[in-house]
This record gives sequence, structure tokens and C-alpha cells, in this order.
Amino acid sequence: MMGEVAPSVGIDLVVLAERDDDPATSVAAEVIVGAGTDPAALRAIASCVEVVTLDHELVDRATLSTLAAAGHRIAPSAGALAFASDKAWQRHHFALAGLPVPRVAIIEREEQIESFLATLASPPVVKTPTGGYDGRGVLFPDTFEAARSVIVELLAHGPVLVEEHLDLIGEVALLLVVGRDDSRVLYPVVDTIQRDGMCSETRHPTVLPLLLVREAEDLAHRIADLVEPVGVMAVEFFWTKTGLLINEIALRPHNTGHWTIEGCATSQFENHLRAVAGLPLGPTDAPRASVMVNIVGGPEPLRPAPSGHGDVVYHDYRKAWRPGRKLGHVTVIGDDVTAASVQAWEMAVALGAATRRES
Amino acid sequence: MMGEVAPSVGIDLVVLAERDDDPATSVAAEVIVGAGTDPAALRAIASCVEVVTLDHELVDRATLSTLAAAGHRIAPSAGALAFASDKAWQRHHFALAGLPVPRVAIIEREEQIESFLATLASPPVVKTPTGGYDGRGVLFPDTFEAARSVIVELLAHGPVLVEEHLDLIGEVALLLVVGRDDSRVLYPVVDTIQRDGMCSETRHPTVLPLLLVREAEDLAHRIADLVEPVGVMAVEFFWTKTGLLINEIALRPHNTGHWTIEGCATSQFENHLRAVAGLPLGPTDAPRASVMVNIVGGPEPLRPAPSGHGDVVYHDYRKAWRPGRKLGHVTVIGDDVTAASVQAWEMAVALGAATRRES
Repeated sequence: MMGEVAPSVGIDLVVLAERDDDPATSVAAEVIVGAGTDPAALRAIASCVEVVTLDHELVDRATLSTLAAAGHRIAPSAGALAFASDKAWQRHHFALAGLPVPRVAIIEREEQIESFLATLASPPVVKTPTGGYDGRGVLFPDTFEAARSVIVELLAHGPVLVEEHLDLIGEVALLLVVGRDDSRVLYPVVDTIQRDGMCSETRHPTVLPLLLVREAEDLAHRIADLVEPVGVMAVEFFWTKTGLLINEIALRPHNTGHWTIEGCATSQFENHLRAVAGLPLGPTDAPRASVMVNIVGGPEPLRPAPSGHGDVVYHDYRKAWRPGRKLGHVTVIGDDVTAASVQAWEMAVALGAATRRES
Repeated sequence: MMGEVAPSVGIDLVVLAERDDDPATSVAAEVIVGAGTDPAALRAIASCVEVVTLDHELVDRATLSTLAAAGHRIAPSAGALAFASDKAWQRHHFALAGLPVPRVAIIEREEQIESFLATLASPPVVKTPTGGYDGRGVLFPDTFEAARSVIVELLAHGPVLVEEHLDLIGEVALLLVVGRDDSRVLYPVVDTIQRDGMCSETRHPTVLPLLLVREAEDLAHRIADLVEPVGVMAVEFFWTKTGLLINEIALRPHNTGHWTIEGCATSQFENHLRAVAGLPLGPTDAPRASVMVNIVGGPEPLRPAPSGHGDVVYHDYRKAWRPGRKLGHVTVIGDDVTAASVQAWEMAVALGAATRRES
């Protein structure tokens, strides 16, 4: 989706993709086939572009550091990416900076398990610090006994993040875009509805109390002061009875910002490119209600999209169908957020997507 | 308070006051002694000013209409004032326009009482349609039987407003300022904390869900389309589980907007004068948290104000002490709304005001 806006921003995109039939290659001026975890591939792309940016976290940060030291421009930097790709690092450094995060222990040896579990009223959430995405790497054991076994099992592969299980009122997210010169624009806070650990829907305007909207915005700025990103930084929050806690951040255009394509004056993709290219950031006004629903593969392949109308837009990622895989998203713009949500789910049902609307 | 800003807006204020020691006379370029309900006094002031405006509703609307017909400029107009000074008119016309209001009956004869009470699950709120202010003229009978007696009693003096008793999450208010040319500026929505039917505190930023903040703003515009005010229009809302309902409007600088003196780029008083004088309206940005607490007379006269500091401002109305009377207000500007609220109430306690903080 970044590639679709690159021409209008005057940017030629060179894409590093693992396969030459990756959908991103269709919008690229040039394609390099290789993995983000492969130092040679990273060196190859850095040598032929003015600035390297990323749309996922599975990259070799050490190589990015070396490239930056050799004068290549990497945005966001490898140092910033450490926060986004290692949840343990993120939680630890956010807590040190006084930012509100869930209570967490980074367990490295079995002997550390009991002392943390003893502080909890209910079984914890167990996470692998790296590589988790869309609910993979996040486990919700039912009992303390089940928690112990799963932690022990995961310890075989490295440290384990064990967190208090929060009683949530809801979850919200926002995007802050940071330019090379630290110019910043905020997008509106959205409600994010989660299903099986995956974002299934975003809604604007949010039902979050305005007081907490202002706090979320303030926290995003404080995170950016610490992380020093360039480009889009997405921040996901837990909303509890006692306020907001930071769930996690991402340093790239994010699923919770897909609604900005139709919903905002400038999309997150355009503003990400503007930021990393050193161009002025665009305005983020979002005057109308906007709902985005992820289209996730169900038990059967998707049906063809029924013809919508101007306010209902289906984005087909042209990915092969697989149950549980994100295959696209639908955005509906309207005057009423509930009506827009119902319309978006009507489209999801018509397509044969896996999930159904939750109110 | 309007008089204090008049010189900086370049306006000479002629004040119509019932007594020549009214606090408003100290800031007036000229004073006319008389009542707003006295046609002769209204004619006298209209004859020597370019525009007549009001800071309360106890005026003779028929005379204002006549004056307007004779070419005098009255802002807001007598037609607009009908909405603010007659609650029955307001409820009826708002409901007709599809604006959300509490369920209400205007009872004119005893025979009408039972059919409305039969539709209610709990005893109603009983109001006199005109002249109510700060909780006067609003009754909360405990039982249906008590409701019947009080309605019958009030019917001797004219029609009675009988409303459903709502289960409130809270109450909020906002100001919309409308210029002569229908230019408009909105002030932020504030939480209003009520005590004994009187506003005891306002808080910015609000805890209202952002979705409902947008709805409140939209409703204010729709009300203005109907009422066609000039100057400040204050709108007070009930916040219930099913959304917002309009409680009432006022067409003048309002107690729920006193915080704007220190809290906003332009105060409600300055913008009211700008609006009625046909000047461009000023910006309403309010970057910091702001809490206003009314100082109400307690059993003993107030003590002298302790010396505050820049962020805690006491406004003394220089009115004679009387238990239950509003004698001034305190505004605190800060970074955190809860801390600002606590500071404001500390000042109220130091002054010996009647009420205490409710969280």
C-alpha cells in the first residue's frame, strides 16, 4: 500500500522482497529478491537507494547499524527498531522511562517463575519477546499450573515475557508520524476491536474519554522522545479502569492505520514516505466517521467482492487464500460510526470472511 | 466579568442595573438604573447604544421585539431568547426539530397528570417552565404521590414541566459563540459537577467519550441553526447510558464557561462582546487542564483569600455574603485535571465556602 502512493509523492520505490511474485513487487520501480534478515540483501538495497525504510520488523538490525555507520540513511534507525522488534526491551525501557506499561517479568530461568506468579491475582499472559505478530506468540493460559508449563516449555527457546492479565475496558491505538527534522503529526485515536489476538476492526471516532485521548497523545509524544523514530510510529494501548497502559509500538505503517487511506486528508502510507524522504508531512484531518474491518480467510476461499459504492472500499491484498490469513480490508466512511461498522461487516460477510461483527 | 474585558475590545459598556451599587456598575462607562423587565428601562438603554445584549434572562421580551422592529439591534434577538427563558418552549421545539431531549409533559390541568405519570418507571422531575435558576424551580419528589401533590400545588401558578428522572453517568456542557454573520467558534466540552441543582465545578479536558464530544458539538450546531443566537450560547447536556440529551441552553456567558478566562486563548466574555459587536471571533484553544470551582457562601462569612500563585486564580464577585449564594469562583490551570481540581477545592476550603470536593 506504500507503493501505491509512492508515485504521487515523487518517490521511486526499490523493493526488497523474498519472492518475485510478492504483491509489493507490482508497485516497485525495481525489485531485489532477498530477505530482510540477510545482510547481503540489505547491503544490496542500501547501495542503490537514498533511504532505506521497512514495512515489517523481521530484519537484521546489526547490518542496518553497520550500514548507517557507513553513511547509508536508515529510517527508522536500528536503535529505534530495537524497541519495536523486542517486546522485552520495549517493556523494560518504557518502564524505566516512567511510561505506563503492564506489570511484567522477563523470565530467563525456571527459578524466576514462582516469585512473579506469586504477585498475581489471576493467571498471566505469556509472550515470546520477539517474532510475535497478530496474536502469534501470545498465550492466555487458563490456570497458574498451565502458565507454569507453557513458560517452562518456551524457556527452551529463550527468555519469556510474563505479564499480568489485565481487565480491559477496551483497546485503542494511534499513529504519530515523525519527520527527519522531528516535525510530528498525530492521527486520531481509534478504537481497536481484537479477536483471537488479531485486530479485527478499527473505529473512528473513538469512544475513549477525551481526557484519555489527550493522555494517549501525550504518551505517544513521550514515547517518540525516547525511541526517536522516523516515519510512522503506531502505539497500541490497553484501556483499563485505572487508565491507559502501553501495549506495544510498531515503527511502520500499521494495520490500525489502514482506515487513513480513505478516512484522512493524508494516508499513513503517504506520510510514512514523506517522513523518511524528508518531505513536509501532510495534514491528518478526519472529519467523518470511519470504520476498517480486516478480511480474514475463512474455511472457504473468498467470494468475489460485490460492487460497493463510494463510501465502502474493499482493498484486496491479492494474497493466496488461507484460513486465518489477512487477505484484505474494507473501509467505510459515513456520518455514524455504528452504521459504518455494520456496513463494513456486511461486506465482510458477503466476501465470506472468517469473522463476524462484535458490538 | 464582561465589563472587565470591554475596554480591551474597544467597547464602551452602558449597564442597565437594578441598583447603582451593582458590581457591574464599577466597570461601566455609563449606568442606567432599572430592571430588565421594565419596558421604559429597556427603551432608555436601547436609545443610547449601538447594540443591546444581556447577561440574564429576566427581561421583557415583548419590549425587545418592539425595539428590534423600530430598528434597534438586540443580540440575541427576542425570538432566540424565547428558547432560553421558557423551558417548556425549549423542550417542545427541540423535540419537534428532532433534537434529543428528556421525555417531558407540559401539564396545564390536573387531568393531564396521571396519563404521563403512568408512562414512568420512577417519580419524575418537576420544573417550573420559567424563572428557574441554579436549582431553583427544579424539584425531585421521592414518590409518585409526592410528585402529584407538588404538581397540583405548582399548577396554581401556571403550566408545570414534568420530566422523566434520568439515570445519569454525568453532565457536560459546551459553549458555541455565534457572530452576527453566523461565524461560529466552539469551546471545548467540559464536565460539570452538580450539587443541589447548582454547578459546583467544571473540568477540562472532559472524561466524555470522544465520540460523544463530537456529537455534543454537532448538536450545538443544530441547536444554533434552530435558535439563531448571536453571542455565547451555552448548552448543558445529560450523559446517559444511551447517549446525550439536551438539558438546557442559555444565550449569554455562562457559569460553565468561567474557566475560559484563564483556560482559553479568548474568554467567553470577550467572544460574547466580539460577537454582538460584529467583530471577528477569537480562537478558543485550551492546551492545558483547567478546573473551575464555584465559591458558594457557607454558614459563616468567607475568610480573606490566601495568596495563591499564578495558576490558582480567585475571582471575587464582591457580592454580600449569604449562605448558598455564589460569591465568586476559583480557576486552576495545570497539567493534570485531578490535581487541578484538588487545588481548586483547597482554595474553596481555605475561603470557607459551603461545599466540598466530590470525586
